[in-house]
Amino acid sequence: MTARIDAQVAFLNEADRLKSITRATPLCDASRYENSAEHSWQIALYALVLGEHADPQVRIDRVIRMLLIHDIVEIDAGDAPVFGEHDASAMAAREEAAAKRLFGLLPEDQAAELIALWREFEANETPDAQFAKSIDRFQTPNQNMAAGGGSWRDYNVSFDTFLARVGSKVANGAPKLWHWLEPRARRWFDTHSEDARKGG
Amino acid sequence: MTARIDAQVAFLNEADRLKSITRATPLCDASRYENSAEHSWQIALYALVLGEHADPQVRIDRVIRMLLIHDIVEIDAGDAPVFGEHDASAMAAREEAAAKRLFGLLPEDQAAELIALWREFEANETPDAQFAKSIDRFQTPNQNMAAGGGSWRDYNVSFDTFLARVGSKVANGAPKLWHWLEPRARRWFDTHSEDARKGG
Repeated sequence: MTARIDAQVAFLNEADRLKSITRATPLCDASRYENSAEHSWQIALYALVLGEHADPQVRIDRVIRMLLIHDIVEIDAGDAPVFGEHDASAMAAREEAAAKRLFGLLPEDQAAELIALWREFEANETPDAQFAKSIDRFQTPNQNMAAGGGSWRDYNVSFDTFLARVGSKVANGAPKLWHWLEPRARRWFDTHSEDARKGG
Repeated sequence: MTARIDAQVAFLNEADRLKSITRATPLCDASRYENSAEHSWQIALYALVLGEHADPQVRIDRVIRMLLIHDIVEIDAGDAPVFGEHDASAMAAREEAAAKRLFGLLPEDQAAELIALWREFEANETPDAQFAKSIDRFQTPNQNMAAGGGSWRDYNVSFDTFLARVGSKVANGAPKLWHWLEPRARRWFDTHSEDARKGG
C-alpha cells in the first residue's frame, strides 16, 4: 500500500503544475486570466449545479470526475485557446503523450482507468462526455460576459465564430443550456457589433 | 427553467471570487501561495485518486461534491489558516452567514441541499465528512514538504502543533493515509529541527 500512495502523491504533486497553466479566459472581475486548475474546479462545480439540465441518462458524478482530470494533459501540452489557431492533429499527439506520462505516474491500474476516462472526454461521443464537453464550453461565455468581453475581445471573435466553436458544442451535449445561453450571447454580440464586425 | 438557470449562473459567477482568496499554503514549486479555488480542485482530485484508502462505507462521489463546495464560504468569511490564531466561534458565525448568502443565490431547493452538505462537512461526524476533512488536511503537508516548508516555516510550526492541528484530523478520517504521512512528516521536522525548536 505504501508504494501505491507514494505513486499517487507523486502524481498529485505533479498535477499541482496545472495551477501555473494560464487560460485565455479572465476571471469575472477581469482582474487576471484564470488558470486551468481553478477552471477545472469551477466547471466541476458547474456540473454539480447544472446537472439537472442534462439528459437523464447522464451520470453527473462521472462527468465531475471527467472534468476534474480533463485538463491535466495541459501540464505537458499547454492550453490551446478555443479561438486561437493551432494544428489539431499535432496537439492531439502532444496531449496523448502527456496523458501517458502524467497519468502514468499512478499505479498501473489507476493510470489505465484515468487515461480511458480522459480519452472518453476527448472523443466526445458518450452522453457523459458530451455533457462534460458542453459544460467546459458553457463556462467561458459566462466569464466573458461578466468580464466585459474577455477572450471574445482579445481574439476579435464574431458571433458566427462563437456559434461554430462554442455554440455547436454546448448545443450538442446540453441543449437546455444552449437555449438559455444563445439569446444572451447574441445580445452581447449585437450590442458590441463594432467589435463583432472586426472579427470572423 | 430560465429562472433556475439565471439563479444558478448568478451563483457560479459569484463563486468565481474563490479564485481570489489566498491560502497560507504554497504551490509545490513555491512560486506563490495557492488560492482556494485551485485548492478545491486539487483536493477533489486527491479524493478521486486516494478514495481506495477510505473506509468502504465512504461514498467518494459524495466526498468530491463536499470538497468542491467546502471553501465557498471563504468568499465572505475569508480563509482561517490552520496554524493561525482566530476566534473559532466568531469564524463559525461568519461562515454560517456566508453559506446562507452564497448558496442562497441558488434556487431554494438547491440552496438547502448544498447548505446541508456544507454543514455536514463542517460538523465532521459522518464517514463521508470525516474522509473529506482528512483529505483537506492531507494535501497541505504534501505541498509544504514539496515547497521546502511552506506554512510550517511561515508559522514556525512544531511537530507537536502539526500533530494536534493536522495529524489528528487525518488520522481520524483516513488512518491509512496518516500511517503513510506520519513518518514522512516526522522526518521533515527532524531534519529541520532548528525551525521546529523555534515553534510550538
